[in-house]
Amino acid sequence: MITPVTLIGGGPGAWDLITLRGARALAQADVILTDHLGPTPYLETIVADFGGDLATIEVIDVAKLPYGRSVAQEKINELLVCYARDGKRVARLKGGDPYVFGRGFEEMIALAEAGIPCEVIPGVTSAVSVPAAAGVPVTHRGVTHSFTVVSGHVAPGDERSLTDFDALARVGGTIVVIMGARHVQAICERLVAAGLAADTPAVAVMEGTTDGQRCVRATAATLPAAMAEAGITAPVVYAIGEVAGLSLLAGMG
Amino acid sequence: MITPVTLIGGGPGAWDLITLRGARALAQADVILTDHLGPTPYLETIVADFGGDLATIEVIDVAKLPYGRSVAQEKINELLVCYARDGKRVARLKGGDPYVFGRGFEEMIALAEAGIPCEVIPGVTSAVSVPAAAGVPVTHRGVTHSFTVVSGHVAPGDERSLTDFDALARVGGTIVVIMGARHVQAICERLVAAGLAADTPAVAVMEGTTDGQRCVRATAATLPAAMAEAGITAPVVYAIGEVAGLSLLAGMG
Repeated sequence: MITPVTLIGGGPGAWDLITLRGARALAQADVILTDHLGPTPYLETIVADFGGDLATIEVIDVAKLPYGRSVAQEKINELLVCYARDGKRVARLKGGDPYVFGRGFEEMIALAEAGIPCEVIPGVTSAVSVPAAAGVPVTHRGVTHSFTVVSGHVAPGDERSLTDFDALARVGGTIVVIMGARHVQAICERLVAAGLAADTPAVAVMEGTTDGQRCVRATAATLPAAMAEAGITAPVVYAIGEVAGLSLLAGMG
Repeated sequence: MITPVTLIGGGPGAWDLITLRGARALAQADVILTDHLGPTPYLETIVADFGGDLATIEVIDVAKLPYGRSVAQEKINELLVCYARDGKRVARLKGGDPYVFGRGFEEMIALAEAGIPCEVIPGVTSAVSVPAAAGVPVTHRGVTHSFTVVSGHVAPGDERSLTDFDALARVGGTIVVIMGARHVQAICERLVAAGLAADTPAVAVMEGTTDGQRCVRATAATLPAAMAEAGITAPVVYAIGEVAGLSLLAGMG
């Protein structure tokens, strides 16, 4: 019998924002395939706290695989299948949540096609927790009843884009962009052109929840320049919406 | 010196989907104020695993406060302030994430106004993890680049609504509705009337991630009837979008 592979959401970056279930699965693994994001540097502590010994676990940093991104994903899928067929307990550790732009479902499909069961252990998504770490709630009563999490890796108007940014500008909720460093100018300009108020508050947070966290507050119109000036680049999460103007933490010193 | 109050996201329901940081804060608390949602029944195990003893902790189930909802929130705020001023280490445990319709920021404001610091410990949000527990990823490459989480506690068109459902229908991403049991018919009808394809796949999950989990698959048009027929009521999360048609788990038996 093949042990199910576990796809584990490691959370936004701080090592102790992984779940108990995720930590236990890591401690019980024979092999851990991990990205460079997430709590990787703290694996030893987490595994030990849950009764494991990292010295007995093979750890593979798949971010270091010597391939381009799409080939690397195929290689990761192969490794997952290969180790599982070999009878190993395989843990696949990802930053954030496996299903929030984590390609988790692609790995699950690859495993399913190989007849290997898979369990997904959800994680704390960066989309909510990174703005929170900068004092910004993605929802607040009387301010917004919704938030949209959108991948910024494809620019608005690009033929590969699956998002109607003009409609998004009118929904009325918080807009949270992940993987949006490169296209921040195009995204903000498109949202404002589509009717989002130019002075809508915005916040960008780099390396959120880690010791390296840095953030900048601006507006939908000024965010690209503010990020450039502050040197805020990937990995970054930015949130645009009235909630970004709720500067309680700033006021508390 | 006043110890900061911790607002803790307890995750979607399963006890071991709380974070390590959240579990530790519970174990170190003098007082825990908890909702009926989240991992409350397992507090004893969690606290013991992290070196605490629940017998020495005062646990208050604020869901049982004998008031209406808005008065209850004022009372919760009062209790948080009162215990913190009394020198207690206060933990406020919430289901899901404190900032995803959790009224967490309201409690933080109340504490700030009383001069009491507050730390937010994010949690695994039900919006992502509950569909995942039914095998549905909120994003999948080539299928959707965004998802919107919307509160369904106010019907579309209600004067209190802050969401433009017509725009939402056109964004092109997954639509996840929380607290939407009561208004599911109005929400689905409005989305379809605004242009969302009537045969867009949908899934509704009740008591997701717990032993009582039940789910039903349908379409944007048939979801209200399917939920009624299956007896799916609150607490429910439903997701509408192409991702809800990815029935990998169903196929794997």
